[in-house]
Amino acid sequence: MRFYDRLIDESAPGALQAVPATTNVPASEYPRVYADGRVTFRVHFPAAKSVRLEGGQGLCSGPVSLAQDGAGYWTVTLPPTVMGFHYYWFNVDGMLVNDPGSQTFFGYSKQTSGIEIPDPQLISSDLVTAPVIPFYAPHPGPQGALHEHWYHSQLTGNWRRCFVYTPPGYFGVDHAAARYPVLYLQHGAGEDETGWSRQGGINFIMDNVILGNVSSFFATAAGTAKAKEMIVVMDNGYATYAAPRPEQPDPSEAYLRPDSKAFGAVLTGELIPFIDRTYRTVANRDGRAIAGLSMGGSQAMAVALTHLDQFSYIGTFSGSQFSTARGAQAAAAASMPPFSPKTSYGGVFAGADEFNSKVRLLWMGAGTAELALNEALRENAEKLRSARIRLTEYHSPGTAHEWQTWRLCLNKFAPLLFQESRIDR
Amino acid sequence: MRFYDRLIDESAPGALQAVPATTNVPASEYPRVYADGRVTFRVHFPAAKSVRLEGGQGLCSGPVSLAQDGAGYWTVTLPPTVMGFHYYWFNVDGMLVNDPGSQTFFGYSKQTSGIEIPDPQLISSDLVTAPVIPFYAPHPGPQGALHEHWYHSQLTGNWRRCFVYTPPGYFGVDHAAARYPVLYLQHGAGEDETGWSRQGGINFIMDNVILGNVSSFFATAAGTAKAKEMIVVMDNGYATYAAPRPEQPDPSEAYLRPDSKAFGAVLTGELIPFIDRTYRTVANRDGRAIAGLSMGGSQAMAVALTHLDQFSYIGTFSGSQFSTARGAQAAAAASMPPFSPKTSYGGVFAGADEFNSKVRLLWMGAGTAELALNEALRENAEKLRSARIRLTEYHSPGTAHEWQTWRLCLNKFAPLLFQESRIDR
Repeated sequence: MRFYDRLIDESAPGALQAVPATTNVPASEYPRVYADGRVTFRVHFPAAKSVRLEGGQGLCSGPVSLAQDGAGYWTVTLPPTVMGFHYYWFNVDGMLVNDPGSQTFFGYSKQTSGIEIPDPQLISSDLVTAPVIPFYAPHPGPQGALHEHWYHSQLTGNWRRCFVYTPPGYFGVDHAAARYPVLYLQHGAGEDETGWSRQGGINFIMDNVILGNVSSFFATAAGTAKAKEMIVVMDNGYATYAAPRPEQPDPSEAYLRPDSKAFGAVLTGELIPFIDRTYRTVANRDGRAIAGLSMGGSQAMAVALTHLDQFSYIGTFSGSQFSTARGAQAAAAASMPPFSPKTSYGGVFAGADEFNSKVRLLWMGAGTAELALNEALRENAEKLRSARIRLTEYHSPGTAHEWQTWRLCLNKFAPLLFQESRIDR
Repeated sequence: MRFYDRLIDESAPGALQAVPATTNVPASEYPRVYADGRVTFRVHFPAAKSVRLEGGQGLCSGPVSLAQDGAGYWTVTLPPTVMGFHYYWFNVDGMLVNDPGSQTFFGYSKQTSGIEIPDPQLISSDLVTAPVIPFYAPHPGPQGALHEHWYHSQLTGNWRRCFVYTPPGYFGVDHAAARYPVLYLQHGAGEDETGWSRQGGINFIMDNVILGNVSSFFATAAGTAKAKEMIVVMDNGYATYAAPRPEQPDPSEAYLRPDSKAFGAVLTGELIPFIDRTYRTVANRDGRAIAGLSMGGSQAMAVALTHLDQFSYIGTFSGSQFSTARGAQAAAAASMPPFSPKTSYGGVFAGADEFNSKVRLLWMGAGTAELALNEALRENAEKLRSARIRLTEYHSPGTAHEWQTWRLCLNKFAPLLFQESRIDR
């Protein structure tokens, strides 16, 4: 996406009432966002009989009808909308189509329109010179970088792509001998390895939290501690074995979906070695964390809890790994037993002292507007604490099963990583 | 895009007649490509009255109607189609929509469906183990990498993104002191800085040509000389000045479109310094080339010919910088005078000896199926040779104003770069 250079200032003389969303393609005037968070969508579908807007929880809770103006333009203005990134699309006479005026993002297992709604506190601020910078937007300081790699997986039999974030300074001559810890960070179901960079703003989130840009706007982010310099690796969470599959199953398989059965084996057997020989990493469990959102959170738990020799830090953002009272029926349908600290994940939580000595951080977050997952998080965190498991719990106020929750989770999670680990320089 | 792991083999027992295109989103069965280059498109648009396929020159020369099957599925099979990457979309009752089954690519100033048609010689080959690898596909050797950077431009007043390719070995400890020459490489009109990586396959083209993977398939690429290790930088070609604009105009402005007037100033004043301080570059004209496709080719000429103190190598792929006899009317309409070696670009070609001593490579390519541009190339190359300007001319057989032409141009152009320059190690 692009970024606002000057934001909406409705109070300024002659100011625009609304400006094109930063997620629009260049020169596209719609959708437009207002200073108060309203959004106007407008498309030219002259032959359509009905056009409805559908999309993420924070944008609209159900389909919203657009009105036609007689010249083939369909328009709707939503009331003030939850800030952050929302997927959306139009239902045109039963056909789901993207907005030609917006960028697309990989979600719902296909390319899908997306819109970024800025924080109200950002309105009238100047991203370039003002001290108020969203924690997921570019900043005037030194920049980290994103790297794209392709690697061939023997386990899956195909080419896979991963993205790697390196922090500011990684390529500086004064850091030529520095080694960095690594966070493996996964996307959600229906998304891919581009999610954290395109929807999430991973490089800006990490830059800001590493540089300690704590003036970065907005109460829940302000005051965040500075994170250690680290590498972040984002792989594709879908992976199935090519024939013949390895004789020895990876222990993570029992906790992975059919379409990601090979993910733990690929991550630990192929991706980590590739990263460790390509980047200057701290190549041991002291310097390795794993986290993910939604499906990716469940995968992080599945892989880390069955490979504690390889990971010391674990994070799950809106992860669905725990069945809860409310979710018991769904869990049963998925043949997942209710969460129990005694038996789940092979009983890894049963020995609290051993677990607490090995796992330096078990971090669980969710948004309060994703009701079932948030309730599951509270219930199961309580269960774990009763079993004397040390963990950190976070509830992002008012955010749903959407990227704003996961941006905030990462912003809170990252500063807690690798604080105890020795980093060789 | 993904890549074929096993390709279509219609002769194999029980073989599929066709396989999903590599450019499909995961699990999407359509479009499907046949071994002979035929393609079947199929979409579910139940409320549509008419559905037509439209797209790039190599895919279909005009709209092609799809037939409905009574259950809302619309299908068409195209006869054997030109290999390479083609943009396409559907016209549904006058509304232009993308194929939900395909990835999208930035073209035509918005997100647009794209399909990759493999070379007939690739059919039945095995990309992983077979020696036959397309020169724009991944290979079993060491991999280069792509890097994404954001930088703030004072000249335009906004954040800009660029992509950087580094060759295999760049990050190896044995190369820690190596410096690399840099090719600045631009996209075409309606595209952006993602074009060369997503549509073009820049990293695979460069890897293969640097590693000397001359077994890389297909006559026009086989036998290509090995290229020097180099960095490639891909920026956005659109750039206009923020107010107040600099008092001193950049000399390139006279030859740039209104929507890219600031491009030369940004490239030479902001991007090159950013790259030179971020990467281990040969930071002088001996180690600097510029090239581009279509609009980007014109921009490469505009910037290089007005900044010969900064560039020694120039390439234009299907560039429209030259008006020709056939194009004279269009050129006049664009107030561009007919090309003349005596007067064009401020008369830089008038002093052939000086030009030839400064410019180590002037390279011009086009596809023979893009008739007007190809003719313009022949005419103007002849004019330049008559004026004793040294140049290299390339005509890609049978390819149109599409990415296959530009992939081939890069494959031919890259090995000629920096062969004379001293690279400090």
